[in-house]
Amino acid sequence: MKAVTVGILGLGTVGAGTAETLLKQRGLIEARTGIPLILKKAADLNLDRDFGFEIPKEILTTDAREVIQDPDIQIVVELIGGTTIAKTFVLEALAAKKSVVTANKALLAEHGAELMAAAEAAGVDLFFEAAVAGGIPIIKALREGLVANPITRICGIMNGTCNYILTRMEQEGIGFDEVLLDAQQLGYAEAEPGLDVDGWDTAHKAVILSQIAFGVPLKLSEVPVEGIRGISPQDVHNAAELGYRIKLLAMLDQSEQGYSVSVQPVLIPDHRMLSNVNFSYNAILVEGEVVGETLYYGKGAGRLPTASSVVADIVDAARDWSGDSHARIPLSWDAKPTPKWIPVVDRLERSYVRLFLKDEPGSLAIVAQCLGNHGISITALVQHEGEEAHKFIPVVILTNEAPVGAIRHALEELSALPEVGGEMVRYRLEDLPG
Amino acid sequence: MKAVTVGILGLGTVGAGTAETLLKQRGLIEARTGIPLILKKAADLNLDRDFGFEIPKEILTTDAREVIQDPDIQIVVELIGGTTIAKTFVLEALAAKKSVVTANKALLAEHGAELMAAAEAAGVDLFFEAAVAGGIPIIKALREGLVANPITRICGIMNGTCNYILTRMEQEGIGFDEVLLDAQQLGYAEAEPGLDVDGWDTAHKAVILSQIAFGVPLKLSEVPVEGIRGISPQDVHNAAELGYRIKLLAMLDQSEQGYSVSVQPVLIPDHRMLSNVNFSYNAILVEGEVVGETLYYGKGAGRLPTASSVVADIVDAARDWSGDSHARIPLSWDAKPTPKWIPVVDRLERSYVRLFLKDEPGSLAIVAQCLGNHGISITALVQHEGEEAHKFIPVVILTNEAPVGAIRHALEELSALPEVGGEMVRYRLEDLPG
Repeated sequence: MKAVTVGILGLGTVGAGTAETLLKQRGLIEARTGIPLILKKAADLNLDRDFGFEIPKEILTTDAREVIQDPDIQIVVELIGGTTIAKTFVLEALAAKKSVVTANKALLAEHGAELMAAAEAAGVDLFFEAAVAGGIPIIKALREGLVANPITRICGIMNGTCNYILTRMEQEGIGFDEVLLDAQQLGYAEAEPGLDVDGWDTAHKAVILSQIAFGVPLKLSEVPVEGIRGISPQDVHNAAELGYRIKLLAMLDQSEQGYSVSVQPVLIPDHRMLSNVNFSYNAILVEGEVVGETLYYGKGAGRLPTASSVVADIVDAARDWSGDSHARIPLSWDAKPTPKWIPVVDRLERSYVRLFLKDEPGSLAIVAQCLGNHGISITALVQHEGEEAHKFIPVVILTNEAPVGAIRHALEELSALPEVGGEMVRYRLEDLPG
Repeated sequence: MKAVTVGILGLGTVGAGTAETLLKQRGLIEARTGIPLILKKAADLNLDRDFGFEIPKEILTTDAREVIQDPDIQIVVELIGGTTIAKTFVLEALAAKKSVVTANKALLAEHGAELMAAAEAAGVDLFFEAAVAGGIPIIKALREGLVANPITRICGIMNGTCNYILTRMEQEGIGFDEVLLDAQQLGYAEAEPGLDVDGWDTAHKAVILSQIAFGVPLKLSEVPVEGIRGISPQDVHNAAELGYRIKLLAMLDQSEQGYSVSVQPVLIPDHRMLSNVNFSYNAILVEGEVVGETLYYGKGAGRLPTASSVVADIVDAARDWSGDSHARIPLSWDAKPTPKWIPVVDRLERSYVRLFLKDEPGSLAIVAQCLGNHGISITALVQHEGEEAHKFIPVVILTNEAPVGAIRHALEELSALPEVGGEMVRYRLEDLPG
């Protein structure tokens, strides 16, 4: 079969891993697909560094446009990152009728519709498996393997940094700040950790999955996002005592009531598959109306795991070049009718609430009364005996499903009571399948 | 886009589920793919029964050849089962240049090479996602999502009946026969359970995965197969006490030493993802050289989960009809050089051994000595205090890695000793990742 020619933009961690995998696995890929893949050019502004393997000098260039404008190159791989120059290069490559492969989740989440339209207009592919959950072939599973399924729910652990921190908090009983510092030293967290620990990276992926799985385009600003900074070792411990673990989840839910998406810490029963996803691993639970629940697990980041997905996309694009079957799989689709969006306040959620209560007769009754007034029933309550020195003692409450708006109102009312003091937290609780 | 026309052979459980899914999800599939799928004909010898949904009378026929020979039909879906008439029909359909989709694992495991050659000669597709692990898109993941990965290991729980029985034995502490009877009454096991509980169904799937993932064709007779009938509640309990669970696994391993495949009960640490796959669920752990370990979980059987994969294959075949891109993904490939096959006796495995030992001084030393003579070191040993009435007491031994041949010789020697009595069992033990 005719060779297909590839060029890479950006030789950072993932770019170098992709170049290495393309060169090292060329024989295997040709044996499996019949297609020889040629890596002709790789561009990076800084060529004076260790790429982690022996990269042939003659393919290197500092000029991205030398890659984009090369008439031999059929597939351009964007691994620069960011949403400025990367976007320009991707649009230029698409305009030059190159298929584009990228791992750039921010670019997809913010400009996905524009890029997909450009790819469709050019009649070429735009693939981005590596943008969601690194090495796990989740986009392929959703677009192809589960194509017959109305998707009813996706729950994903899709940020390795957050999951690493939460796993260590749980296993070692230590606080967020301490683990973060250690994670930064070990390379599991960035010096600027906000994108990860505040939930935005997970939100980027949720936006991409919303389009792929549900046919619903979303703006990042429409997604309620809560990170993990506020989670205390005490809450992790309380959750464990009740048989739950806290995970940062992207949750996309569709039912007859409507559609909702959020990124938030969630308590899930500790015997579920998702609860057993530890450290920097990712996993995505997908519920389809036909297949039931399925789960996909693996490394969500890293040089080679991410390269695995990038090269799989390159191979898919190469198959489409070989068979002249571009756009075989439509890049986007729209659910019709557009599902009704459920505002956060109307969502029915179970809750974990932890508050401090004055250790005196009648306090608990007042709390239960207040929740009851808002139609919220208590399913579990833990109050340990207080030490004499403390006036306020922690109380943990699990509730049945209630609208988030109702629980928020109830908690506001509780905060104002003299019997309730100190900081109060509320997390979603979900009895997941799987 | 032009419609693609489908015919089904066999309206049993999966056939009816496939027809239902095709009809019910037609709108969704067209929204996602742009392709209208038309179910034109469905053949079954027995049309006088409840298909579980309203199937239009005009598409029904008792004549399979009416489907195969219909010039409008581009995709023939074989859901009859068995390896006789199903094989004839598949070959006829391929000869008539229809793409074929099947869920028939026995057919693929026994005649896969012949059928693939026929499909290649005809220039049409032959897809069989549903033949391995039902609703889980594992073949797609291996062929496409992980295409850049030399696969080093696959460990699969791929028979729901066995996993259901083992889960209940573990959770309820009851015996194989009792659970089997109950499972039969509940519909989780066949009246003739041998194909499942003796490991052959899992072996069929292992043969298919060997070709797909490793490029190594295998005959069913080449695979060492052991089922779960011999597993006692005592062994399940002993395993749990030491932090392990017993699962029936297909294990395909490739390393520098060579390649090996087996189906056997294996003790795996109880905190692993695979250990937490319960009841009739399936899961497949795949280790790739680039991506590391990944895992795929879901329902491995059942009317609709299986239909989910059958319809996904139909859609893939339809995409290839729409884009005239048949054989876009080669059906088979051959690893070159063919990896060296490691005979069972040469395989290095850890072991769980349970034997009965005379409760007298020096007995344990004799056992340890015998294992030591064969180069087998003990990593854990549990001997509970015997009751006075018993001369022999059970002893559980976990060993380090040793060739299976050595452990077999050692156990034979032990059996002959006067200090050792009763039945002795040995299972593989694996410290899996994930």
